[in-house]
Amino acid sequence: MYQTYGYAAQDAGSPLAPFEFQRRDLREHDVRIDVLYCGVCHSDLHQARNEWRNTLYPVVPGHEIVGRVVETGSGVTRFKTGELVGVGCLVDSCRSCPSCAEGLEQYCENGFVGTYNGVDRVSGDVTFGGYSTMLVVDEAFVLRVPENLDPAAAAPLLCAGITTYSPLRTWGAGPGKKVGIVGLGGLGHMGVKIAAAMGAHVVLFTTSASKIEDAKRLGAHEVVISKDPEQMQAHANSFDLIVNTVAAQHDLNPFIELLRRDGTMALVGAPEHDHPSPQVFNLIMKRRRLAGSLIGGIAETQEMLDFCGKHGLTSDIEMIKMQDINGAYERMLKSDVKYRFVIDIATLKQ
Amino acid sequence: MYQTYGYAAQDAGSPLAPFEFQRRDLREHDVRIDVLYCGVCHSDLHQARNEWRNTLYPVVPGHEIVGRVVETGSGVTRFKTGELVGVGCLVDSCRSCPSCAEGLEQYCENGFVGTYNGVDRVSGDVTFGGYSTMLVVDEAFVLRVPENLDPAAAAPLLCAGITTYSPLRTWGAGPGKKVGIVGLGGLGHMGVKIAAAMGAHVVLFTTSASKIEDAKRLGAHEVVISKDPEQMQAHANSFDLIVNTVAAQHDLNPFIELLRRDGTMALVGAPEHDHPSPQVFNLIMKRRRLAGSLIGGIAETQEMLDFCGKHGLTSDIEMIKMQDINGAYERMLKSDVKYRFVIDIATLKQ
Repeated sequence: MYQTYGYAAQDAGSPLAPFEFQRRDLREHDVRIDVLYCGVCHSDLHQARNEWRNTLYPVVPGHEIVGRVVETGSGVTRFKTGELVGVGCLVDSCRSCPSCAEGLEQYCENGFVGTYNGVDRVSGDVTFGGYSTMLVVDEAFVLRVPENLDPAAAAPLLCAGITTYSPLRTWGAGPGKKVGIVGLGGLGHMGVKIAAAMGAHVVLFTTSASKIEDAKRLGAHEVVISKDPEQMQAHANSFDLIVNTVAAQHDLNPFIELLRRDGTMALVGAPEHDHPSPQVFNLIMKRRRLAGSLIGGIAETQEMLDFCGKHGLTSDIEMIKMQDINGAYERMLKSDVKYRFVIDIATLKQ
Repeated sequence: MYQTYGYAAQDAGSPLAPFEFQRRDLREHDVRIDVLYCGVCHSDLHQARNEWRNTLYPVVPGHEIVGRVVETGSGVTRFKTGELVGVGCLVDSCRSCPSCAEGLEQYCENGFVGTYNGVDRVSGDVTFGGYSTMLVVDEAFVLRVPENLDPAAAAPLLCAGITTYSPLRTWGAGPGKKVGIVGLGGLGHMGVKIAAAMGAHVVLFTTSASKIEDAKRLGAHEVVISKDPEQMQAHANSFDLIVNTVAAQHDLNPFIELLRRDGTMALVGAPEHDHPSPQVFNLIMKRRRLAGSLIGGIAETQEMLDFCGKHGLTSDIEMIKMQDINGAYERMLKSDVKYRFVIDIATLKQ
């Protein structure tokens, strides 16, 4: 067992605070990772505060993890000590259902094991995430992080990156395709970068005129203020794909109307209260599709990391100390971050 | 000009009544058709009563038309006098936009010309439909009806048939696929027949236990009473495709939950009031899709008719006299028809 230092919430009403625990002894295929950086995802806050009503306390959040391999189990073949690796939202799945067989472990029909607030399939223990000094994970769920990327800025790729990359790939973003990204937050800013790198014509939708310049800097070819019906109307029936990253309840119809025939709007954020009902007529008249998409599978996450390595893509980040996490949550609630907080885990070891 | 006898509504509040009018002289590519039978679609009633608020009066409904060619324009190459033909919901489109170029005239980006309550692109006249003795239509929008089919029972294929065939084809119904059809009305009963003939495993969803036997006779392998949560739960995560023919406002979530990963529910009925909002979580967790689908293009409609000819598929119909149309509308409102009224147009000529 390995003594580990982390930050945990002990109940829904308490702030995150120091927490010591043990990581398991290495199983045959386990990799032990010295955590360097961990991104701060909005779902960390949701789960720390039990807003999805399924939190098992104490909870150690964090699923945008980058670190270095420090030890490998006897059966590990894919990783060596010293390699730069990442761990995302999943640390295990049933590995036998049709979705797992297709490499889509995020849709595991028996339920994937979350990196935190999950239940280990062998021991039954609750999993603890990346707000910690050390991680022990089966090599099948460990990703290789390209050495040319800044490891801190690469951390958010493990959730924000793959969550936008996956729908962009699934629905064929690329040259000749017009792709919309709704919202310029942690997910949206990665969506803009990745879609642009894929060669698509990228339009960023935002409610805030203050984001126009930044969106263009990140790679958007056009920026549309979604509150302005005239600007929206100019793009009617023209999008092949819209990736909607906004989790707050909002009217989907103005965006659905911008899809061309057979176009898809993929929702990647689950609102606390459902969006108002989409107009069926808008779907029928152009065979449009409204879909959802959940993170990505392990193989696709590796593909995304390799793609980001090739194109030099990382997240725009603001580095914080572990001790500042509760303040960071408050700022995140106000969207006051460009565009992802990343915890320097070295601050935990001091 | 050709003297034609039909039935028309003169305004939203009046019943259909006899109406005489002229069909245009034949243009180069026109085909003149002696109408034999015309199916009665729910949208006929909607438009006769201006429930979609776009009706141009007088309106002669009818877009499930079967007849015989009696005359051809000088440039007509595809049809000869005496041939059994059909006309569906469209009689023209722009023929140059990307959708038309792909043979998807129903999604014409400049607006297709409806068989009735449309505006002719040449003359600007309002089009009159199949509740009439004669039709003049450009050959590009005329379909060949297989001679082995009962022409009266083939009429509903032109709308009810293609409206269900098109989504079944688009989303790959066939052997090894599990396909649901929601609702056993004019559209639903054709959906069951066609999906079964395509080789899919077909499950019919109905709220009414009285329809179980009939659904099985029509080809359904299983029937589920959609009000029974236990029966519904037994099919969770199992459907590749659900074609939802119910236009009445209803909760889509119980059906979305039955889709497997990457499954699609295609809506083919537009409710007067939108369905309650679907749960985004249900879409995200299995990358499910909610889509719409509108009738079908001309090439696909011909493919559907040939498919029905090959498999001997027609609609279950109840034949009526033209004079009984207003009573038929009242019965249709009560779903009191198995499964489509078809007007014997000979009764108009007496």
